[in-house]
Amino acid sequence: MENLLKENERIDDLEYKDLKIIQNKDGFCFGIDSVLLSDFAKDIRNNAKVIDLGTGTGILPILLCGKTNLSKIYGIEIQKDVAEMATRSVKLNKLENKIEIINTNIKEIDNILEKNKFEAIVTNPPYKKINSGIINENEKKLISRHEITASLEDFIKIGFKMLKDKGAFYMVHRPERLVDIISLLRQNKLEPKVIRMVYSNEESKSVLVLIKAVKNGKEFLNFEKPLFVYDKQGNYTEEILKIYNKI
Amino acid sequence: MENLLKENERIDDLEYKDLKIIQNKDGFCFGIDSVLLSDFAKDIRNNAKVIDLGTGTGILPILLCGKTNLSKIYGIEIQKDVAEMATRSVKLNKLENKIEIINTNIKEIDNILEKNKFEAIVTNPPYKKINSGIINENEKKLISRHEITASLEDFIKIGFKMLKDKGAFYMVHRPERLVDIISLLRQNKLEPKVIRMVYSNEESKSVLVLIKAVKNGKEFLNFEKPLFVYDKQGNYTEEILKIYNKI
Repeated sequence: MENLLKENERIDDLEYKDLKIIQNKDGFCFGIDSVLLSDFAKDIRNNAKVIDLGTGTGILPILLCGKTNLSKIYGIEIQKDVAEMATRSVKLNKLENKIEIINTNIKEIDNILEKNKFEAIVTNPPYKKINSGIINENEKKLISRHEITASLEDFIKIGFKMLKDKGAFYMVHRPERLVDIISLLRQNKLEPKVIRMVYSNEESKSVLVLIKAVKNGKEFLNFEKPLFVYDKQGNYTEEILKIYNKI
Repeated sequence: MENLLKENERIDDLEYKDLKIIQNKDGFCFGIDSVLLSDFAKDIRNNAKVIDLGTGTGILPILLCGKTNLSKIYGIEIQKDVAEMATRSVKLNKLENKIEIINTNIKEIDNILEKNKFEAIVTNPPYKKINSGIINENEKKLISRHEITASLEDFIKIGFKMLKDKGAFYMVHRPERLVDIISLLRQNKLEPKVIRMVYSNEESKSVLVLIKAVKNGKEFLNFEKPLFVYDKQGNYTEEILKIYNKI
């Protein structure tokens, strides 16, 4: 395994079906948002062709190979060294037959992959608008967190373009952007069908939103039960332990 | 009190600061949604001038007089006999100096009241689109539940028109319409600022949404902690008991 690791990188055990991931110690490491999204998207159909827009370390494709029976997933990543690291994670998990990492801007993928062909899109896009929040990180974290190379609307527009009719678009994002998200999805004919809010605990504001939209879907939203990360005692809830495969 | 009641009507005690309400036994009776909205809107400023769009029995103006220090609230109701009954409820509570019921279509109120003048709008509008759901009720319930005489967009548009700059629009509605609600609010420059979802219990889908939007407000949504009606044992939660003034 030695040759798959570069300097300043480490291998983390995903503790899920023996899956592993390579991460850069100074870069953007995957978080609970990717894990929750992979679980939220586990209704992706068998044999589906899928795209992950802005895959980063490749965490979503790798987890989805554990949680679904998809046939192929393309992970799109603009940062060359991050894409290259994701490719090594794919090898590490021997998932080359299912996952392909493509190093390009998500806005360009319709030149590489066929439009109107995919059953599902998953995405954990940058959460912050440019010029919002304090920007004092290195470039790698910056591109992962801020809408520098692609905006929320770009993610939605390319999602629509690549999906089949009635294909599903799964996204995790921050609740403070929910008005943007819902307005842009509907404007772009990805109709929001399922929303689930994630709360740190019963007394906290929501910290994440999970949303499923359907290309040209009928208007009707299911607003699922809340997902709590911690219980009143400050321990992980049973549902979170299940998602992390601990029980 | 006898002369305030007509045939087929009853007086219900709101069990809140000795407030009471007259309801028609066969008509649309107020529900938990109005009670929750009155509590959600209790940050209405002192001395505010307020409008309740589609007041029905007058439940919202009456409860808001108990929960806030507003100076004046107009309850707009299109159904003549319902408006007349609401007026009698106002008298019953001796709130004639604070509440005025106006019998007209909400779309017409800019001919009666001054535009751009109100600190707050509250509304519990009909939840269903025309031609959706089963329509087999009498006309009174029908107008209260379906968008027959005014659509969701009409409620939002007139709200914007009547509010001051930065005035607040408070609404209770059904989660399945949240995409419509959010899209229409933003399109009409009422920016959603606070959302709170109501769930029957921790294992149920959301049954109601409480939303506060601000006229010409900045983009940033606060997604509040969930509100549960029942606990795991099937009893009312502490928060619900507080809202109903039982503890």
